[in-house]
Amino acid sequence: MKPSTTALLATAAVAVAVDYNTAPPNLSTLANGSLYNTWRPRAHVLPPSGRVGDPCMHYTDPTTGLFHVGYLHNGSGISVAITDNLTTYHDLNPGGVQSIVPGGINDPVAVFDGSVIPRGINDTPTLLYTSVSFMPIHWSIPYTRGSETQSLAVSTDGGHNFTKLSQGPVIPSPPFALNVTGFRDPYVFQNPALDDTLSSAPGTWYTVVSGGVHDVGPSLFLYRQHDMDFQYWEYLGQWWHEPANTTWGDGIWAGRWGYNFETTNVFTLNEEGYSSDGEIFLTFGAEGSQAPIQKQVSSIHDMLWASGSISTNDGFVTFTPTMAGVLDWGVSAYAAAGKILPADSQAGMKSGAPDRFISYVWLTGDLYEQAKGFPSAQQGWIGTLLLPRELTVRRILHVVDNALVSEEGSWRMQQRKHNNSVELTTLGMNIARETYDALVSGPSIEEPAREMQSASVVPFRHSPRSKFFVLTAKLSFPKSARESGIRSGFQILSSQLESTTIYYQFSNESVIVDRSNTSAAAQTTAIDYANEAGRLRLFDVFEDGEEEIESLDLTIVVDNSVVEVFANGRFALSTWAR
Amino acid sequence: MKPSTTALLATAAVAVAVDYNTAPPNLSTLANGSLYNTWRPRAHVLPPSGRVGDPCMHYTDPTTGLFHVGYLHNGSGISVAITDNLTTYHDLNPGGVQSIVPGGINDPVAVFDGSVIPRGINDTPTLLYTSVSFMPIHWSIPYTRGSETQSLAVSTDGGHNFTKLSQGPVIPSPPFALNVTGFRDPYVFQNPALDDTLSSAPGTWYTVVSGGVHDVGPSLFLYRQHDMDFQYWEYLGQWWHEPANTTWGDGIWAGRWGYNFETTNVFTLNEEGYSSDGEIFLTFGAEGSQAPIQKQVSSIHDMLWASGSISTNDGFVTFTPTMAGVLDWGVSAYAAAGKILPADSQAGMKSGAPDRFISYVWLTGDLYEQAKGFPSAQQGWIGTLLLPRELTVRRILHVVDNALVSEEGSWRMQQRKHNNSVELTTLGMNIARETYDALVSGPSIEEPAREMQSASVVPFRHSPRSKFFVLTAKLSFPKSARESGIRSGFQILSSQLESTTIYYQFSNESVIVDRSNTSAAAQTTAIDYANEAGRLRLFDVFEDGEEEIESLDLTIVVDNSVVEVFANGRFALSTWAR
Repeated sequence: MKPSTTALLATAAVAVAVDYNTAPPNLSTLANGSLYNTWRPRAHVLPPSGRVGDPCMHYTDPTTGLFHVGYLHNGSGISVAITDNLTTYHDLNPGGVQSIVPGGINDPVAVFDGSVIPRGINDTPTLLYTSVSFMPIHWSIPYTRGSETQSLAVSTDGGHNFTKLSQGPVIPSPPFALNVTGFRDPYVFQNPALDDTLSSAPGTWYTVVSGGVHDVGPSLFLYRQHDMDFQYWEYLGQWWHEPANTTWGDGIWAGRWGYNFETTNVFTLNEEGYSSDGEIFLTFGAEGSQAPIQKQVSSIHDMLWASGSISTNDGFVTFTPTMAGVLDWGVSAYAAAGKILPADSQAGMKSGAPDRFISYVWLTGDLYEQAKGFPSAQQGWIGTLLLPRELTVRRILHVVDNALVSEEGSWRMQQRKHNNSVELTTLGMNIARETYDALVSGPSIEEPAREMQSASVVPFRHSPRSKFFVLTAKLSFPKSARESGIRSGFQILSSQLESTTIYYQFSNESVIVDRSNTSAAAQTTAIDYANEAGRLRLFDVFEDGEEEIESLDLTIVVDNSVVEVFANGRFALSTWAR
Repeated sequence: MKPSTTALLATAAVAVAVDYNTAPPNLSTLANGSLYNTWRPRAHVLPPSGRVGDPCMHYTDPTTGLFHVGYLHNGSGISVAITDNLTTYHDLNPGGVQSIVPGGINDPVAVFDGSVIPRGINDTPTLLYTSVSFMPIHWSIPYTRGSETQSLAVSTDGGHNFTKLSQGPVIPSPPFALNVTGFRDPYVFQNPALDDTLSSAPGTWYTVVSGGVHDVGPSLFLYRQHDMDFQYWEYLGQWWHEPANTTWGDGIWAGRWGYNFETTNVFTLNEEGYSSDGEIFLTFGAEGSQAPIQKQVSSIHDMLWASGSISTNDGFVTFTPTMAGVLDWGVSAYAAAGKILPADSQAGMKSGAPDRFISYVWLTGDLYEQAKGFPSAQQGWIGTLLLPRELTVRRILHVVDNALVSEEGSWRMQQRKHNNSVELTTLGMNIARETYDALVSGPSIEEPAREMQSASVVPFRHSPRSKFFVLTAKLSFPKSARESGIRSGFQILSSQLESTTIYYQFSNESVIVDRSNTSAAAQTTAIDYANEAGRLRLFDVFEDGEEEIESLDLTIVVDNSVVEVFANGRFALSTWAR
C-alpha cells in the first residue's frame, strides 16, 4: 500500500456563533442561516442560497467560449453559473437569479430540465425544456395528460435570460395513447451514426425524452429534428425500454432500471473524450422503489450509464445495451447532466484538452426532499452539483481472461490478446483535469509507503487539519486478498466525536463509506448517516508476466461536507459527511 | 301567381325614447340601450344582451329530453338556451351566463366552438371544444403553433356548468408538421358507414376538426375515438381538402371553398330527417377573401353544405363530394351548428316528428365585426341565431332531363325514369315544423290569387301592420319566363322612408333581397344596406304530362329586423332589414 495525501484549501470554515468544540445541539433550534458555512463546500457549484436541483442547460456559448452550467434552482426555474476554466465559476445573473422561470402559458406550474442547442433558432442558443402544466407527477400515480410538454426558449443576451417562444410546445404530447409514467428532460444531441442509420441529413439534431410507460417499464423516447426552426420533432419510437423493476444482469453492476427513466444524456466518446464518431453512451437516472411501493415516493434513485448498439426496424430505431454501470454510487447522487466542452472553448484552450464531455452529477442535500427534519433554514442552501467529470472510453489492459471477466457487468470484452490476456472497455470517469489540478495546487504532503499485515488504524504522520483536502492513494493487495475478509482504506474527518471511514472490502468487491460515526448531529437531527457502498471489481492483470490483482487507485476529495471518492478512473461514489 | 300572406306576433316594438315617426338621427349619438328593442327579434334565439357568436354545443339531455342550444357569447365562453318545443326557449343560466368560460390552463385566451357527446365520460354530457392559448388566429397570417387544441369538459348539473378536466388537451396539436390555417370547432358524430369502412366498433365516435393548410387549402381533419374515456382521438387523415380559393363546379351553386374551413358538422339524413344509415352530409363555413387579401380579414364567409362518398386508402379515409350547395345565402349567415334531435326528445314527442337533424345558422349582427360604426352600445345586443331548420334529403321529382339538370350543381341525379323524367336529390331545409306552426299560429290573412302581365307594384289588400309576420307565397311562371327579364316578388317593411323588396329574377336564377332602401339610418350609421342574393334553379318539371317551370314556393319570415327567405324547401337566404 502506497498512500499519499494532498491537502487543498487548508483554511478553516468560518463559524457563525456556533460552538464547534462541544457536542452539537439540536441543529433545528439554531437561528436561520447559522449553519450557512458549517457544511458549505467551496470547490463545488452551488448558488448563494436556496435549493439546487438537477443540473441541466449546460452549453458552451459559441460567441464567448464560456461554459454555462445550469441547474434547477428553488424549484422555480433554471439558474446558471459560467466558467472559463472549470475551477472558478460566476453566477451568470446576480445572486443566482434564474435565467428562465415558470409561469408562461406552456409552463404555468413548473420548468423542468432542458438542454441547449448552442446554435439553434437564428443561430442563437436555443433551449428545449420540459414545460409543466399539472402536478403532481410521479411514476407511482396515474399520469395527468399534458402534465409535461417540451417547449422552446431562446437567448439573445448571452444566456442571462431565455425567452420562451410565444407559441405552444414543440413536442405537445407523449406518443399517441401511451400511458406514460413520465415524459421530461429532453436532451438534444447530434450523432453521425444515427444520421447514417436513419438517413438523416448530416448534423441533424435528436432529442431523447426520458420516462416510462405504466405497467410496462422505463423508456426513452427518441425524436428527430424536422425543420430548421426546431418547430417539429419527428417521433422515432421508444428507442430503449426495459421491463419495470428489472436489472442489468443480476443487478450487481448496474443497479435497477426501476419504473421511470429521467435526465437521460446521449453522447459519443473515445478514449480522449468526446468524439462525434465515438462510441454511444447514455447517462440516466432510474426511479425505483423498495417494496411495497408508496405513492409519490421513489426510495431508489440510481444514477446509471449504458453503452450499446443502434439498429433500425421499420423506421424505428432501437438501442440495445452492451454494458451498463453506475455513474455515481452515492444514494444522494443523481440526475447528472453533461455537455460537450469543445477544445476551442475557453476552458479547453486553457487546459489544452481535446473535445470533452463534461458531466455534473447532482448531490441532493435532503435525500430528495425525504429528509424532512433537515435543518434547511439554518443552512440556507440545500444540495450541490458535484465536481465536473470528464467521461471517456476507458480500456482496462492486460486482464487475465478468467471468470471475473465473463460476467455481464459494467465492462465489455474489447479484444482478446494472443497472450491469453484480454482488453476490457468501460466508461471512464475522472475529475476534470483543470479542476483536479486546482484542487491539488495547494501545499501537499506525501506519506511514505507502508505495508500492513494486520488490522489496525495507523495515523498519517501529517493529517489534514481542515475539512478541505484531496487524498490520493494507491493500494496494492496480494493475490490472497481476493478470498480474504480484507478491508483496507482511510479514516477521514476524525475528531474526538466523529470520523468517517472509507475502505475497500474484497468480500463483496465494494468501496464503502462508513458514515455511522460521521455526524454527531445525527443524534438530534434528521441527518442521514447510513453507509454508502459501491461496487468495483479489481480484475486480475498481468504485470511483468505475473498475475496480480489490479491496484486500487483512490482519489478522495473532501470539500467540507461533500466527499467524492473516485477509483481506478472508472468508479465514483459521492456523499455527505456532515 | 298565387300569393298568400300570414301575419304573426302583430305587436309593435316598444320604443325607448326614440321617435320612430321622423327620419332617424345618427344612431350612434343615442343613449346606450336606447335601440334595444328597435330591431330585436322575438322568435329567434339570442341572449338578453351581448354578442352572439357561433351556435354550438347543442345536444338533447338524455335525462330531461330537453334540447340545449348553445352559442358563443360575448367572446367569453358558451351560453345555452333550452327548449322543449323549438318555439320557446329559456336561458339555462340566469341572464344567459356562460356554461363554460375561458381562463383555464388549456384555454387561457378563449373557448371556441365545441360539440357534445350526450352520454360521454361516465355517461354524462361531455364537451369537446377548442381551447385557445394564443391569438390572433386567422388563415391570412402565420399560424401560431399551439393556438388551438381540443379539450374536454363534462357537466353533471344538467349543463349549467361544463367543468374542464384537470388535464391537458385530448387533441394537443394539429397533425405533425402541418402548417395549418386553422384547427378548431371539433364536431363529434357517429356514423355506421364509417364504422364499416374503418372496421371500427359499432357506435364509435368520430370528430371532424375544421381548418386548412397554408399554401394548400381548406381541409377537414378526421379523428376516431380511441378509448372509453374519450382521452385519445386517432388521426385518420385530412378526409377532405380542396385547393385554396377554388370552387365547386364553376362556383355558381356552392360558393367558394376559400382558404379555411370552419364549424363543419357531419351527419346522415334521409327524406324524413336524421337517420344513422342515411346519406352523409356536411355543413361548413368557408373563409375566403376578395383579392387582394388583407391580413386578418375574411371578406367572404360562405355557409355551405356538401354530400358525398367515403372511401379508404391505406387506413386513411377520404370524403369526395358529389354535390354541394349553400345552406344560407345571406352575407351575414354563417357558422351553422346542428345536432340530432331524437324522436323521443321532449320536442320530438310533442310534435310527433321522427329523429331530426336541427341546425341553427348564425346571423352576425355587425358583419363579422367589420361594421365598426354599428350602434352596438345603443342596441345592447349583437347578432342572433336564425330559426331552427330541419335538414333532410330532398327529392325533386318529375324533372325534365335537360341542360338545367346536367350542370354540376347543388343537386345530384338520383334516378332516371322511363318517361324521360329524372329524379334529383338535394339537401332539404325547412323551418322546424313546430317553430313554423307557432309562427303561423296567429291571425292570418289570405290574399286572392292574382295574375300579372306587366311590371308594377300591387299592394296587398291587407298588409301586415307590424314588423313581425310570415308571408308564404306560391309564384308560377310561364315557360317564356326563363328567357325573359322577369323579376317577381314582394315589397315588405314599407313605409314612407323605407322598403325592402324580395324577388326572383330569371336572368340569373336568383332570389334577391333589395335592401338599398331598407334602412333610412344607413345614411348616418354604418348599417349595411347591400343587396343580398342567392341562386335557386327552378327546374322544368312534368305536370300532367306538360313541361312547366317549377313554381316558386316562398316563405318569408320577418321578425323585426331579421328576414329569412325560404324557397322550395331547398333554399334559404337570411339577412337584416333594419
